[in-house]
Amino acid sequence: MTRARTDVEQVELANTAFYEALERGDFDGVSDLWLDAADLADAETYAGTPDTGADPGADAGTSPEVSPIIPVPVPVPLTDADDGDLHDTDDTDHGSDGPAISCVHPGWPVLTGRGEVLRSYALIMANTEYIQFFLTDLKVSVAGDTALVTCTENILSGGPAPEDSEELGPLVGQLVVATNVFRRTPDGWKLWSHHASPVLADSGDDEDDETPS
Amino acid sequence: MTRARTDVEQVELANTAFYEALERGDFDGVSDLWLDAADLADAETYAGTPDTGADPGADAGTSPEVSPIIPVPVPVPLTDADDGDLHDTDDTDHGSDGPAISCVHPGWPVLTGRGEVLRSYALIMANTEYIQFFLTDLKVSVAGDTALVTCTENILSGGPAPEDSEELGPLVGQLVVATNVFRRTPDGWKLWSHHASPVLADSGDDEDDETPS
Repeated sequence: MTRARTDVEQVELANTAFYEALERGDFDGVSDLWLDAADLADAETYAGTPDTGADPGADAGTSPEVSPIIPVPVPVPLTDADDGDLHDTDDTDHGSDGPAISCVHPGWPVLTGRGEVLRSYALIMANTEYIQFFLTDLKVSVAGDTALVTCTENILSGGPAPEDSEELGPLVGQLVVATNVFRRTPDGWKLWSHHASPVLADSGDDEDDETPS
Repeated sequence: MTRARTDVEQVELANTAFYEALERGDFDGVSDLWLDAADLADAETYAGTPDTGADPGADAGTSPEVSPIIPVPVPVPLTDADDGDLHDTDDTDHGSDGPAISCVHPGWPVLTGRGEVLRSYALIMANTEYIQFFLTDLKVSVAGDTALVTCTENILSGGPAPEDSEELGPLVGQLVVATNVFRRTPDGWKLWSHHASPVLADSGDDEDDETPS
């Protein structure tokens, strides 16, 4: 990797490295790009209470039961995978897992902490034979030791082959937007948060319902 | 507002204030909570090139044409609103609008800069008679002058009444997760990024498609 002249360039390189590691199915490479406990040793983290906000309501904190196979374009929420619960039951965010990182895959709930986040990538990689990210509309903003990246992820992917002679499952495309938050560390820019979500189209309903959020 | 003893508490208060302003339909209150140019005067921002990443592909940067009425649960992408284009055509992120802020509403593409972001809230508020946010699973992480908040937004909302004697349109619920990034300023914690997305359920398809993103 050439030495970038500015923070913005370095952040772009880290962002690119993240997507390239995903494309290679490089779990260690992806793990290295996420912030760990040593990087956030002096950060202050609070798990918060399950119900806060203007009007405390029902606690929706329990993860719905789902299978690890994620249909396109409607992802399936998390369930107990073969490697144990994807969600930690302990709400406290302190610990050796670098608790402050968070990740949202398109259509998924929030994953928090290195355990949950990295397990999700292991799961996704195990179910993905081919994936390519075509990034557009990349924007980078750096303030102090934090960088914010937004981009559109045009994703082409294919799952494992069905039980016949084909080498790849069907290829599917997804239009996704992402906000990636990076933190400066002695080892370079590392991911603090990755939030990706589907861009949804007009369903052509006759209803005039609005989504005011 | 009582003076919070820690950064985490102050960030929680700012996060709560944001949702309460939305519930009140308080456009000025929401505007005040977003970072502005003065707050980011020393930040470094780069718009980036439209196509970056491992494999440059088609430029998907153009916003699809959509109406301002946003069906639930499938939001309609942006279109020309009465107040002009919601997307700035200039890709450069510098300027007096505090260019570095970004916002993703559930199912929408990325909005960047105060102009686009605040116009979206004006649009949403104009089409929303009632909205309540029940926040759960709140987690706050503070590192230096930046704070990361994740939470589940359990949203209850209703649009304007149809042309009869009812006072509210039908109430609809949404399950949404959000990542809010705050930046410390002399005026308190301000929003740098808000990324909200729907939590999607298993569609019950017979297909074994996977969504590896």
